[in-house]
Amino acid sequence: MPRPLSATVHLDSMRHNLARVRACTPGAKVWGVVKANAYGHGLEHALRGFADADGLALIETEGAVRLRELGWTRPLLLLEGIFEPADTALLDQYGLNSAVHCVEQIAMLEQARFSRPIDVHLKMNTGMNRLGFRPDQFAHAWQRLRAIAAVREITLMTHFANADELEHPRLSVREQVRRFCAGADGIDGPRSLSNSGGVLHQAELAADLSNDWVRPGIMLYGGTPGGNTADHFGLRPTMTLASEIIGIQEIGAGETVGYGSRFEATEPMRIGVVACGYADGYPRHAPHGTPVIVDGVRTRLVGRVSMDMMTVDLSGLAGARVGSKVVLWGAGLPVDEVADAAGTIGYELMCAVAPRVRMMEADLENHG
Amino acid sequence: MPRPLSATVHLDSMRHNLARVRACTPGAKVWGVVKANAYGHGLEHALRGFADADGLALIETEGAVRLRELGWTRPLLLLEGIFEPADTALLDQYGLNSAVHCVEQIAMLEQARFSRPIDVHLKMNTGMNRLGFRPDQFAHAWQRLRAIAAVREITLMTHFANADELEHPRLSVREQVRRFCAGADGIDGPRSLSNSGGVLHQAELAADLSNDWVRPGIMLYGGTPGGNTADHFGLRPTMTLASEIIGIQEIGAGETVGYGSRFEATEPMRIGVVACGYADGYPRHAPHGTPVIVDGVRTRLVGRVSMDMMTVDLSGLAGARVGSKVVLWGAGLPVDEVADAAGTIGYELMCAVAPRVRMMEADLENHG
Repeated sequence: MPRPLSATVHLDSMRHNLARVRACTPGAKVWGVVKANAYGHGLEHALRGFADADGLALIETEGAVRLRELGWTRPLLLLEGIFEPADTALLDQYGLNSAVHCVEQIAMLEQARFSRPIDVHLKMNTGMNRLGFRPDQFAHAWQRLRAIAAVREITLMTHFANADELEHPRLSVREQVRRFCAGADGIDGPRSLSNSGGVLHQAELAADLSNDWVRPGIMLYGGTPGGNTADHFGLRPTMTLASEIIGIQEIGAGETVGYGSRFEATEPMRIGVVACGYADGYPRHAPHGTPVIVDGVRTRLVGRVSMDMMTVDLSGLAGARVGSKVVLWGAGLPVDEVADAAGTIGYELMCAVAPRVRMMEADLENHG
Repeated sequence: MPRPLSATVHLDSMRHNLARVRACTPGAKVWGVVKANAYGHGLEHALRGFADADGLALIETEGAVRLRELGWTRPLLLLEGIFEPADTALLDQYGLNSAVHCVEQIAMLEQARFSRPIDVHLKMNTGMNRLGFRPDQFAHAWQRLRAIAAVREITLMTHFANADELEHPRLSVREQVRRFCAGADGIDGPRSLSNSGGVLHQAELAADLSNDWVRPGIMLYGGTPGGNTADHFGLRPTMTLASEIIGIQEIGAGETVGYGSRFEATEPMRIGVVACGYADGYPRHAPHGTPVIVDGVRTRLVGRVSMDMMTVDLSGLAGARVGSKVVLWGAGLPVDEVADAAGTIGYELMCAVAPRVRMMEADLENHG
């Protein structure tokens, strides 16, 4: 009864991608990154798909609580740490591991009362210039944390700005690793550096890069962090966004389609209206020509994406009718290809899938 | 305890904007368009903010059911109609008014059994080439509907492609009105043509345009459909997206910020990290320089928006610190201005606000 639009989450692909992480970084423990509602896939699905991860990492405190309530007993890491003093009680109650990236957070931990030991990830800013202590402030921050009785393990972490490009002209992964090693010199503790890009380039970087914990995100969801296609990296799509044709228009040469009348037909053609628009998470900036699959055949977006609908070219699809199946991305149409056409990245598209899109689960290995 | 990010919905502004609709189109009844979770504002809030509307219109059948459960007793219109035969039972059970845009929907109504009369909106395609019957097919569709015993009132509707531009070179509002009048010639029944753009241009169009029902969307939410600013049209913002600074970096000349190291500082500067990213609905394609308000002062986005964070220039804001208040859009910073910087429209930004953003309600008139 809802609109014929759904996102199917493929648990078997999630397991496959997690296995790819382990193959790239043997010996490292894996934080499955599930922030942003598991990149739009839903926490419940991620819990099942990443059941073999060593821990799950996210930024939403309420998400961490929910994962505990859903039965996740292994480590949970808050990647941005806590936001206010009251959050220290959550760390204690739910046994959460917290990132620490600024002096304000250290002060909150110093003033908190804990009933059990807590583990933290101390973040170094090695050039991303977002969160973390600069290398020359890092040892001091570590000492303050070390002096807190409840703090047990301090993992040393940083984040790469350009992990999709090993030799980035402005800031390379190697340069960030060099700064990290300088800032962490003489400090004991596990290391966590690599995001998806770092994991996928582990082989080239092995000499420079040693991870006790890796923190893959996009690669777990079958998207590439850049540098090559997901398929090249052996990753499988974890989400299929699918809908149906809900209307058809036969238009003549010179007729226009959609808001702004941007597209003008040069010959008679059939236009299919798909129940999916930008309020479903499909990018409004996807241009004319963006690939779409109808009844298993590749065709293209026509005109402007509107809030609840988009229009596609059915000229070569004589059998298409109201009710024909449409794939917006997924198997046969990588999310990165749609993202690339729209000038963005697969991360954004998957995260943007709206609550009104029905979410379903598929598992070819266990139920197929 | 959640991240310090929230969207505040302003009920007083919603009421004000609805009053603007009535002032523009005296005598017409108003469908308050609440699809896409009320353009991201939440159905509950919309129910209160638009309590004076003559009806509410949306596309989600489950949303219509929810509005009935929340106590809305006036008309509800499904703007895309029904999606499968089983939906006819919903029309009957919940007393929903349905758009009818294709022969498949007429066939579903013909085969359904109704326990009470139903009202429909029969849609004409006057050049949008999305949903609806072409003018020369319209009378026949109307006759089929008229022959269904349960069908009571048939409102004749169409939708404008370019209502923000009266004299659009490819397809003007006047041309669409002309086609509509031709297709509806001799057919009795109420008329519904105008969306927000049509409502705002009612004065210029009055001779051509007669509406029994208008269907404003974006203008109810304080956004412009184009053609001029929301402020010019006397509309007030209904949503404020606000967050806080959660980290600060002091960087030197030559240092870069964020993914891709796109931004390079030419002199020493302070960078503030804001808890809001594209997975919250802020547009990833917002470029360097997009306006942001920190502690009441306008400043600018720096570098690339990441999934959960964005970085802003704090150089002119000596007092800014962790915890400083940030406004991403709302009072003082129209959503359309942010959208324009990002190459999109306010509609997309408001609809995209993610479930992880805390939603709050404010009402200056009744509780202020």
